[in-house]
Amino acid sequence: MSTPLQVETHSWNGLRKLEAALPASWYFDAAQYELELQKIWYRNWIYVGRADQLAEPSEYVTYRIGTQTALLVRDESGELRAFHNTCRHRGSALCLENAGRLPTRAITCRYHGWSYDLKGALLRTPAFGRAEPAGLRELGLYGIQLHNWNGFLFINLSPTDQRPFETSFIGGADILRHWPLADLKIGHSHSRTLHSNWKIFWENYNECLHCAGVHPALSRLVPIYRRGILEERDDPNWAAHRSSTDPSLRGGLRTGAVTWSMNGKACGPEFPKLSADERRVGYHYLTHLPSMYVAGHVDYVRVVRLQPLGPESTEVFTQWLFPAQTLAAPDFDLKNTVDFGAGVMAEDAEICELAQRGQHALAHRAGVLMPEEYDVFNFQQWVRAELAR
Amino acid sequence: MSTPLQVETHSWNGLRKLEAALPASWYFDAAQYELELQKIWYRNWIYVGRADQLAEPSEYVTYRIGTQTALLVRDESGELRAFHNTCRHRGSALCLENAGRLPTRAITCRYHGWSYDLKGALLRTPAFGRAEPAGLRELGLYGIQLHNWNGFLFINLSPTDQRPFETSFIGGADILRHWPLADLKIGHSHSRTLHSNWKIFWENYNECLHCAGVHPALSRLVPIYRRGILEERDDPNWAAHRSSTDPSLRGGLRTGAVTWSMNGKACGPEFPKLSADERRVGYHYLTHLPSMYVAGHVDYVRVVRLQPLGPESTEVFTQWLFPAQTLAAPDFDLKNTVDFGAGVMAEDAEICELAQRGQHALAHRAGVLMPEEYDVFNFQQWVRAELAR
Amino acid sequence: MSTPLQVETHSWNGLRKLEAALPASWYFDAAQYELELQKIWYRNWIYVGRADQLAEPSEYVTYRIGTQTALLVRDESGELRAFHNTCRHRGSALCLENAGRLPTRAITCRYHGWSYDLKGALLRTPAFGRAEPAGLRELGLYGIQLHNWNGFLFINLSPTDQRPFETSFIGGADILRHWPLADLKIGHSHSRTLHSNWKIFWENYNECLHCAGVHPALSRLVPIYRRGILEERDDPNWAAHRSSTDPSLRGGLRTGAVTWSMNGKACGPEFPKLSADERRVGYHYLTHLPSMYVAGHVDYVRVVRLQPLGPESTEVFTQWLFPAQTLAAPDFDLKNTVDFGAGVMAEDAEICELAQRGQHALAHRAGVLMPEEYDVFNFQQWVRAELAR
Repeated sequence: MSTPLQVETHSWNGLRKLEAALPASWYFDAAQYELELQKIWYRNWIYVGRADQLAEPSEYVTYRIGTQTALLVRDESGELRAFHNTCRHRGSALCLENAGRLPTRAITCRYHGWSYDLKGALLRTPAFGRAEPAGLRELGLYGIQLHNWNGFLFINLSPTDQRPFETSFIGGADILRHWPLADLKIGHSHSRTLHSNWKIFWENYNECLHCAGVHPALSRLVPIYRRGILEERDDPNWAAHRSSTDPSLRGGLRTGAVTWSMNGKACGPEFPKLSADERRVGYHYLTHLPSMYVAGHVDYVRVVRLQPLGPESTEVFTQWLFPAQTLAAPDFDLKNTVDFGAGVMAEDAEICELAQRGQHALAHRAGVLMPEEYDVFNFQQWVRAELAR
Repeated sequence: MSTPLQVETHSWNGLRKLEAALPASWYFDAAQYELELQKIWYRNWIYVGRADQLAEPSEYVTYRIGTQTALLVRDESGELRAFHNTCRHRGSALCLENAGRLPTRAITCRYHGWSYDLKGALLRTPAFGRAEPAGLRELGLYGIQLHNWNGFLFINLSPTDQRPFETSFIGGADILRHWPLADLKIGHSHSRTLHSNWKIFWENYNECLHCAGVHPALSRLVPIYRRGILEERDDPNWAAHRSSTDPSLRGGLRTGAVTWSMNGKACGPEFPKLSADERRVGYHYLTHLPSMYVAGHVDYVRVVRLQPLGPESTEVFTQWLFPAQTLAAPDFDLKNTVDFGAGVMAEDAEICELAQRGQHALAHRAGVLMPEEYDVFNFQQWVRAELAR
Repeated sequence: MSTPLQVETHSWNGLRKLEAALPASWYFDAAQYELELQKIWYRNWIYVGRADQLAEPSEYVTYRIGTQTALLVRDESGELRAFHNTCRHRGSALCLENAGRLPTRAITCRYHGWSYDLKGALLRTPAFGRAEPAGLRELGLYGIQLHNWNGFLFINLSPTDQRPFETSFIGGADILRHWPLADLKIGHSHSRTLHSNWKIFWENYNECLHCAGVHPALSRLVPIYRRGILEERDDPNWAAHRSSTDPSLRGGLRTGAVTWSMNGKACGPEFPKLSADERRVGYHYLTHLPSMYVAGHVDYVRVVRLQPLGPESTEVFTQWLFPAQTLAAPDFDLKNTVDFGAGVMAEDAEICELAQRGQHALAHRAGVLMPEEYDVFNFQQWVRAELAR
């Protein structure tokens, strides 16, 4: 679901006509999946994890993107580095754990003992009594571009992709500028294998026509969702309700609720710099295709990361981030916060799997997009453009 | 096994020379399998189930053919309809269960609530306060051709296939014209995954050279099978035995047996309209390629349906159909009837899996067909013709 | 690991420059795997097993090579024969067990009863009262070339490969000429699925740069291995140590050990014809690409056989062969012998699986070979040549 726009215009958000969706085969064809890995996942900035998962020099984490494994390590100077998790010698995997701390300030291959410093330069190749072959010193680790954005770590597997990092946020990078993103801490993590193509996840994210039927609790908390729309300007008659305070017309949370949680109450102090309107609405989405979004609430944020596993399978990782102060509070009720979002995501997962199962029909060349699905259309146009570039 | 011919001629059924069988790779090659789905399974009439599995309006069943799922529903007027189980909006699966009853007289997609009447026309797409996009009303369900033949439901996934339904029976549709097929009820069902290509199932069905070795009990019940042949004219010297009553020469059941059952006895009243010769022979096969056959006995029929799962895997569904009167009788002995056919089919399954396992040999380009395998040859010619058309 | 050369020359074994290893994709690409089956595994001599596994006429064994299954049988005259395990009639598998004894002096297909004599000629096709079709008699089993070399059975699936068997040993067939190979008996067998490409197994076999880190016990038993080399001439300064008796310079076992076993002691009498130098060194490798090697020790030999299962999966079979006298001795300690080699192989398996896991990195086009990896280079040149011929 996209973030409610704050700027007033006279235009209605909806699509003006039925638009053709992507070809149905793109949701299950193995060659198309491979193409999307190459053209989308292997040459865009991909979110992998939070910087505080590597607090000290020599700490590392490994992440998978499609068939690729990246190794992230904090170097001696405290800087973060990313490499392919592959030794330059004969191609062995370097680190096998998801996370850990290197025993020394070196990355050492277990196979033949080649070691690299934490910037990736070759340090040592064990040998006895012979000269070093010419060219050996150039064999540093295969580097990967890395960007730390407010504590969110992104990598780009393409060595030639030159698009500035910030341009890859959909709708701009400043949607959550009033949130202290860099300072937040992981309070809870969860992952689930979704038996659907990764694009179905995003299409579901980008519309609320399904909300009334699929998300009853969410539609009570966010009354405008019950009307199948994401925000007031998805209603062609929005201008008639400009002075209303009814959240089913204007968006935002039901009266009495301040955040997405089981009881609508915050789990700790609210972020201090939020505007009155940001508090009223109560949820704001920052979207970074193809791999992640952040849902910002007044008291915490939820981060969702995708990892494609195959044409009809995607891993979905979720992190809940909180202020350190909230996590430390003796009466902190994690469950009240986490269960709400986890429940909504479980409902989405089930319905995405349903959507996947119907794509194979011979007669079904492509779906259609309804007026309210303008952001699904935008997502699909983004996919088409990425495949064409 | 094919049905004994009733017409007398002077010709011997056997092939006059060794014939080359299909290329061995056709039994395991993935591209060939995909071709056969497209050219054979997706454009022929395929048996899916019995009409009385959908007794009332709003009852539905779903069936798989290769990667396709068909939804069959009985409409308000009592007519049966078949559709792709896919919503026209964004391609979701509509019904997830194998069978059930729709809560209303509509097929409603769980994802965004699109609903269709039971004839497939679009009824409703939830929306709030906006005009309906042009062209929306045309988006009815994707229809599938359906034919109810004596209570057997067949569908054809090809919208352009125009071959009349009746022509697709091998050897004619009237072989079981004396059986009250439309009135029979399902008394027992069974399914099993066969680890062989679907064509190996049919080749095994079409000859009895294997009977003496593979089916000892069946060869006692049907003495001519012990000689490796299906019927009297498979013997080049058949004319010499024209006046014999020996079932090992003339076909038919052993003396004292009237049907295929463990003890040779019928499970209830015999079908009244059968001819004396139909009673003497005791088994008659109606064959409909590529998906089903019906074995007619004097007291019940057995229906076998194939569903290809992959190049080397096929699901085999079996239904035993009886008169309602038989099923209602207090002394009805289902086991005596079912165990016999189930035992024969288990023997066939094991030997089909053996046949599958040898196909990969590099030196083996194709098998050969013996004189008695004239119906295997006919089946293979049918496959070749289907692939060529 | 290759066998130490016995011939003195002034040359150092090492590669003179960094050499490019095979393309990384060759270790996981499905099409490349299929090509290697066709060009390497299906047209070279492949070790399958020991002749004494078929002691008497009518005894048989079956072996898999890729997708192929070979049937080996001892015929009436005591000669060994190999056939594709496929009936000429309709392609059924003939023998389903790994080993057994035919009930008669014939190979009989369970499907339709075709039987073949033990030389593969067609004996009988059951039929009743009809003439035999022309050409039937030519349908003998598909023969496979077989060679019994000192009790080791090799087959060649290519009917046209004419290369003499003996030329396919790497470094010559006479390395173990002082061992009574033909007379040895299997004392123990073991198999394990290795999650790596078959070539990674051989590359690991052909160098000892990994020994110090991966094989601590082996590096204590064979001190030169701790230096990352296989033999004295892998050291550029070898000439300076020509008069040394230090095994860490000259190769061979640590002082006090005579064989590869947990305690370094032999499991029975030493082979009588070994030379003093063969005893000093204590291990000699006979290598036959792509399928096997024999490690000869003073008291037993270990045979390793590979069977590729897929691009990233290989079955490794190991046999320990002993003199009959050793096996019969009351104090024979099998475990002391077997556990040592099994431990080394388990270490190799783990490190080969590590090597496999890093090959997929997009940036990694190929590894490099170090001077000590000259035999890895030789193996890779062999692979390149096989693919090119």
